[in-house]
Amino acid sequence: MRTMEAEALREIGASLFQGAGSDAQEARLVAGELVEANLAGLDSHGIVRCVMYVDQVLDGTILPGVAPRVVKETPAVSVVDCGRGYGIRSALGIVEVVAAKARSTGLACAASLHCNHVGRLGGYVARLASLGLFGLATVNSPRHGHFVAPWGGREGRLSTNPLAWAAPTDGRPLLHDMSTSMIAEGKIRILMQEGKPLPVGYVLDAEGRPTTDPGAFYGPPRGTILPFGSPELGYKGFGLSLMVELLGAALAGEALVEAGAQPAYGNGFFLLALDPAATCGRDRFRGLVTQLAEYIRTSRPAPGSRGVLLPGELEAQTRERRLAEGIPVADGTWEELRGAGRKVGVSL
Amino acid sequence: MRTMEAEALREIGASLFQGAGSDAQEARLVAGELVEANLAGLDSHGIVRCVMYVDQVLDGTILPGVAPRVVKETPAVSVVDCGRGYGIRSALGIVEVVAAKARSTGLACAASLHCNHVGRLGGYVARLASLGLFGLATVNSPRHGHFVAPWGGREGRLSTNPLAWAAPTDGRPLLHDMSTSMIAEGKIRILMQEGKPLPVGYVLDAEGRPTTDPGAFYGPPRGTILPFGSPELGYKGFGLSLMVELLGAALAGEALVEAGAQPAYGNGFFLLALDPAATCGRDRFRGLVTQLAEYIRTSRPAPGSRGVLLPGELEAQTRERRLAEGIPVADGTWEELRGAGRKVGVSL
Repeated sequence: MRTMEAEALREIGASLFQGAGSDAQEARLVAGELVEANLAGLDSHGIVRCVMYVDQVLDGTILPGVAPRVVKETPAVSVVDCGRGYGIRSALGIVEVVAAKARSTGLACAASLHCNHVGRLGGYVARLASLGLFGLATVNSPRHGHFVAPWGGREGRLSTNPLAWAAPTDGRPLLHDMSTSMIAEGKIRILMQEGKPLPVGYVLDAEGRPTTDPGAFYGPPRGTILPFGSPELGYKGFGLSLMVELLGAALAGEALVEAGAQPAYGNGFFLLALDPAATCGRDRFRGLVTQLAEYIRTSRPAPGSRGVLLPGELEAQTRERRLAEGIPVADGTWEELRGAGRKVGVSL
Repeated sequence: MRTMEAEALREIGASLFQGAGSDAQEARLVAGELVEANLAGLDSHGIVRCVMYVDQVLDGTILPGVAPRVVKETPAVSVVDCGRGYGIRSALGIVEVVAAKARSTGLACAASLHCNHVGRLGGYVARLASLGLFGLATVNSPRHGHFVAPWGGREGRLSTNPLAWAAPTDGRPLLHDMSTSMIAEGKIRILMQEGKPLPVGYVLDAEGRPTTDPGAFYGPPRGTILPFGSPELGYKGFGLSLMVELLGAALAGEALVEAGAQPAYGNGFFLLALDPAATCGRDRFRGLVTQLAEYIRTSRPAPGSRGVLLPGELEAQTRERRLAEGIPVADGTWEELRGAGRKVGVSL
């Protein structure tokens, strides 16, 4: 384990992406967003993703240097072809498109085509909130990522399908970022590596039986993750997940591919922005959300709780701490980054 | 317990509302939507609500004969003043406003002011889906309905804050309608009346301790309902609930009232519609959602499950059965309806 400053990690990420063919601006943009995930404490979506992205450039999945392009639009809706560029560059471009339209029309959304992995979802809605807008984002994955069982089923049909929203306050924005499944695949892998059991009610084995053994998820044959709310209320998470799936794929016109076929996208990204200037006014909205946050925060703590944490507060605390003290980088992650460097002629 | 035909219940509801001052059209509109909730199996939002609505007319909360009115708008956004008319009439009017704008601009939403109880949320997004649109709706309640604790807190700060979405298929629409809390207040009351315990992890007593005693929720002092996902993942339901709250109130400019003060609304209703004609086309969207639904339904059943039920399928099955066999009306409900009739000179 080493501890590194955010800026040092940004430079490492940028050097890898430049080695893989990006210009300095694109490389810095993508690396910067990954490091934001580390700062928020979401290391699974942080600098370690350089490894996957370099591999995806080398196998032709990601095309460096490709900017997203609006291919269909109305005053409120855009379809954006990301052209298999870096997903983070695509999603940041979509934020600009949607924010501009929302500020003009009051409400706007975009659906993506040929979009690669966009990383941490919260960063995009947080940008909308910093402009005084309410933002909502969802992201699905194509069939090979369908680890999540529909409610009542034993075969995976959905991804962990996160959704995120953010709203401005007079201080930090409220920022909620959640998967619609009981657990992310990456967390199951970590428990397996650590030899620890899963909590009860999170995962089914390949026969659809509840299990706490992380190995029973990976198989083969592979098990499934349960939708959020299981075991009793999993139909709720299932319904949310299905919404995320159809906003990410069907809305843009992406069909399900046959099992084993190459999908046309890595993430189906949907983003919506609402400008309160069209309703009560930006200042009034921000003020009322601030009041609401305060009212909620002052609910007395339940026994054993340290009090109410507003959505995004834990991540913001982690960010402050990591900006001051550095970002922990596991030895395995560091070795993987060095390996990615060797593939593109960058010595770390 | 008696069993009544849907049309007979509609006539009873309409006669009560006419007795309370509505014209025949408004009375029939409101009663019809309540009976739709009964047909879907959601009796807590069905004909029994006539009792509450009649009382609210008599105490001046509901003003019969008042139509909703757009007071601010952009090509995509409307603020609708419901003028304290019947909430169901208001929400049905908002469906028309939002659908028309979505068909013109591709995407539209509305926030409500002075809206009374809108009843079952699913019916409004189902109407949007029947027009080929994707629909999303949320509804909050003012402070006196804040039974739900924020994650980590012991004092109620949110309502059960449901959200619903619907999308068209070649058959029945997909229709998902859920609260963002572990249980609805009405269901706790029923368990208390039946002398049954609550499931573990749904409710806290007034001291914030987990309880399975429905009486410990009602107190006094009153306990709280936990947000959806509790005990382990309640921060997810809390984040969803907070989104519903701010879309229902802050967005329209409604401030939190002081404890005990008279709120300006009964429900804060938010509705959004997206026309896939602006993205991949209505026919392609409907076709892709149909394919997706089939793919999901064919996940083999988990042990003990009868297979995957798509969102809205159970409600649709209940509707078919109740249209054929009638709607069960509990003796207590019937007596309450008769009592409401006596208040407005209608003999049942």
